[in-house]
Amino acid sequence: MCELLGMSANVPTDICFSFAGLMQRGGATGPHSDGWGISFYEDKGCRTFKDSLPACESRIAKLVESYPIKSRVVIGHIRRANRGAVKLENTHPFIREMWGRHWTFAHNGQLSGYRRLDTVDFTPIGNTDSERAFCWLMAQLKDRYRKRPSNVQTSFRFVGKLCHRLRRLGVFNMLLTDGEYLMAYCCNKLYYITRCAPFGRATLKDRDWNIDFAQETTPKDVVTIIATQPLTVDEHWQEMTPGEFRVFRAGEDIT
Amino acid sequence: MCELLGMSANVPTDICFSFAGLMQRGGATGPHSDGWGISFYEDKGCRTFKDSLPACESRIAKLVESYPIKSRVVIGHIRRANRGAVKLENTHPFIREMWGRHWTFAHNGQLSGYRRLDTVDFTPIGNTDSERAFCWLMAQLKDRYRKRPSNVQTSFRFVGKLCHRLRRLGVFNMLLTDGEYLMAYCCNKLYYITRCAPFGRATLKDRDWNIDFAQETTPKDVVTIIATQPLTVDEHWQEMTPGEFRVFRAGEDIT
Repeated sequence: MCELLGMSANVPTDICFSFAGLMQRGGATGPHSDGWGISFYEDKGCRTFKDSLPACESRIAKLVESYPIKSRVVIGHIRRANRGAVKLENTHPFIREMWGRHWTFAHNGQLSGYRRLDTVDFTPIGNTDSERAFCWLMAQLKDRYRKRPSNVQTSFRFVGKLCHRLRRLGVFNMLLTDGEYLMAYCCNKLYYITRCAPFGRATLKDRDWNIDFAQETTPKDVVTIIATQPLTVDEHWQEMTPGEFRVFRAGEDIT
Repeated sequence: MCELLGMSANVPTDICFSFAGLMQRGGATGPHSDGWGISFYEDKGCRTFKDSLPACESRIAKLVESYPIKSRVVIGHIRRANRGAVKLENTHPFIREMWGRHWTFAHNGQLSGYRRLDTVDFTPIGNTDSERAFCWLMAQLKDRYRKRPSNVQTSFRFVGKLCHRLRRLGVFNMLLTDGEYLMAYCCNKLYYITRCAPFGRATLKDRDWNIDFAQETTPKDVVTIIATQPLTVDEHWQEMTPGEFRVFRAGEDIT
């Protein structure tokens, strides 16, 4: 299996603290040592750092952890390979362009019978169940809406229905974003927390790092973090229920 | 204008030496301070580092310069903005999936009347002439060949014809790759050099760095470097002529 990390915020925010916790699970405090990746959006622009090395040993991960890239939407992933070899092309997040935006996707779980999913014009590059499921989602979305619908939320509700279908093929927890909206789908394991004023302190579970968010934020900031397992020990993380999905925009739950 | 950097090699090779020279032109020895980017292929996988900061000041560029990522195909770019603001979404290289591969593109030049180019299903995300030209090339290629042709070189000859058309809109030097083939099109300024045994020494033009390739290679290695301007002072770079294109595979010119 793997672990997911997502962020939606109303102001450009760095994710160094959460990323530092997650990276430890990439071979140190957790077994997810088959690669890692993280995508940061800056307006419609997007940049992804990825590596097929274990996160806890990766020089690129070290840079991302120490270099505060400010973003409103982030998707990260650490991999423990099941379908598909340990290679860069099989490393999440996966990205495709649709409706003039970068769409980014990461998956935690394992599917069976996924080779039958028809991906039409969105051809997988690697050979994971995850990338094929993503390409299928994109193909279904594009078939349903040739252009970006004016009410984008309807398209995420449609994705929710598609995720219910994928869930029948196995375990399918996922994060999906177009750089503005961030959708989280829970099959069996996903948590989130929305931080806003009054901000408090938090301590990482996997590393000796304690932060006082009141020092790092303004009273107007709203930041939601999504993760496979809570990243901090002294905050209340909301556990999602099987089959539940949430859509966040600017840190707020707008489902 | 901008500057291009490309590499095609028959063994995974790092590009630290050439990259170090190019990065100096991103704000130090050259005026190309409006962002930079570089894409490395590892088999079918691809990872891109980019920044809208000047290359010579970028912490990410510093990492790429000092961290030898081994690759057979690389495309790099430093930007001096003309069309489109200085933003991540306007930073080269641009990437799209086609035929189950990552296609990567970078452009040096400036086009007029590019908004009329019909990009069909390959929608630009930013607003540069470069990305629109790339999307148009992809759309034309996909319209002509629904699947990857068994003789891929025919598709690059077709791209050559399309480049002649783009050249009528202004200045269009470009690099394009599917991760296996690397195509270079010269409109008015592009050089290349193929290094093979017996290897010699080389000295960067823009930095105090001298290398003995004989120490870094095996006698079977073949490495071609393409650049807007020669990167070294003591080697013979081949100057391309206007309207000429070259296709490289595993370091060899197979045009």
